[in-house]
Amino acid sequence: MKVTAVSLSPDPFLLTSASSESTRAPFPRGRGACPSAPTAAADVLEEFKPAVVSFHFGLPAPELLERVRRWGAKILSSATTVDEALWLEARGVDAVIAQGLEAGGHRGNFLSEDLNTQVGTFALVPQIVRAVKIPVIAAGGIADAKGVAAAMALGAAGVQIGTAYMLCAEATTSAVHRAALKSDAARVTALTNLFTGRPARGIVNRLMREIGPMSPAAPAFPLATAAIASLRVKAESLGSGEFSPLWAGQNASGCKEVSADLLTIELAGALEDAR
Amino acid sequence: MKVTAVSLSPDPFLLTSASSESTRAPFPRGRGACPSAPTAAADVLEEFKPAVVSFHFGLPAPELLERVRRWGAKILSSATTVDEALWLEARGVDAVIAQGLEAGGHRGNFLSEDLNTQVGTFALVPQIVRAVKIPVIAAGGIADAKGVAAAMALGAAGVQIGTAYMLCAEATTSAVHRAALKSDAARVTALTNLFTGRPARGIVNRLMREIGPMSPAAPAFPLATAAIASLRVKAESLGSGEFSPLWAGQNASGCKEVSADLLTIELAGALEDAR
Repeated sequence: MKVTAVSLSPDPFLLTSASSESTRAPFPRGRGACPSAPTAAADVLEEFKPAVVSFHFGLPAPELLERVRRWGAKILSSATTVDEALWLEARGVDAVIAQGLEAGGHRGNFLSEDLNTQVGTFALVPQIVRAVKIPVIAAGGIADAKGVAAAMALGAAGVQIGTAYMLCAEATTSAVHRAALKSDAARVTALTNLFTGRPARGIVNRLMREIGPMSPAAPAFPLATAAIASLRVKAESLGSGEFSPLWAGQNASGCKEVSADLLTIELAGALEDAR
Repeated sequence: MKVTAVSLSPDPFLLTSASSESTRAPFPRGRGACPSAPTAAADVLEEFKPAVVSFHFGLPAPELLERVRRWGAKILSSATTVDEALWLEARGVDAVIAQGLEAGGHRGNFLSEDLNTQVGTFALVPQIVRAVKIPVIAAGGIADAKGVAAAMALGAAGVQIGTAYMLCAEATTSAVHRAALKSDAARVTALTNLFTGRPARGIVNRLMREIGPMSPAAPAFPLATAAIASLRVKAESLGSGEFSPLWAGQNASGCKEVSADLLTIELAGALEDAR
């Protein structure tokens, strides 16, 4: 088995906090967090030595980051502001992912929890490109070859695309999630903390409408996941996604029911044109 | 005097509501609104017969729109969602401005007041281009020639740029506003209703930090403007912009202290390249 890239995203068992180096705790430490788990995760990963390891919510503790670096992996992480990009560059990441607020799923913000000041891709990418010397990967709202070309025009060295792949045969997207992505409902997304305790972008459904997408009543990350589980499971068993996290970016227009390699070839066409 | 384009934006004396045709009242009718004022405004405008009239917050009443059309003006208006773009196209606008949430000043939203579902430029432009047959003008986060090229790559027929012009000699930008635009503070903007009663994007300052940028305590549009006036005037007289609306988009990196024509020539260079 060859693992070329691993993305460590919002699972507290794979993450440690960037808070030891920043001025405030960037994410809550719930009862679900297990101090020794990140080391165990690194043990498993080291066996496969993925060529690229991409972090979310900042970076793990320096000794863990050093382990990843020692096996030769390129290290990426997401920045949602210019300040976060500068923070990551100062800690030696090989490239920074500029995650605009159009992006689906969890926001990668880690220096500030203020969602009011999160930035759109069109404004974020050129400002990060100007601020750092390392390559910048654009993410958020990129759905097709034209979007790739536009991101390259803004100075990106590459793109990260999520939502467009969610109908691909290889994706483990659930049936209710696929149905939502194919419907007009996918045009309306919002950031919500209801499903995990941290703000993430998903298609607006009944739970988000009735409670409001951001609620102080949601248990802290990651406990909200368990809190909503039985309602979600019951609804899904009835074919309803109204209580499920339907993660999606603001531009689901690029979703195609094709194989991931075909979609990648199509998207990469714009990279050739940009050269 | 030749007037080629007029933009009718958040002044209730120049606007009527789109609510008569939509399912809900799109903006509050405060005591400041004067039913006969839009007709008076049209009387004045008709004298100059501007070639382009661009509306914000939807469109005026049909009979007023017809007057503008009769003198031969091209009619534009802003859409912040695909639904708003379709609404405007159905009412015969000549082009639609796709206003991403990066844009500075007032959001042009008029069918929904839900800020949670406002869309970034990178996601909005291609989806509106796909949805309508009329030309789409991209707005929000476009700061320089690269941004213009990127917007064209996304399918825009043109761009609307605000923030980048705010340091131009011709701009009536106040001294405290110019100082803020030139400072690092310009990197952090948020939507706020504190200054007018309607959400608008400005550089975060003390008033926004201390009250919170969106507050139910703000008087309804446009009454908040008067409510904050004396505090603002006093602060500005002391050289402080901490209580002033410092409207700016999320990408102030393109602001230049040059003449507006020079800046326009520089920005238009990308349009030539895109052809």
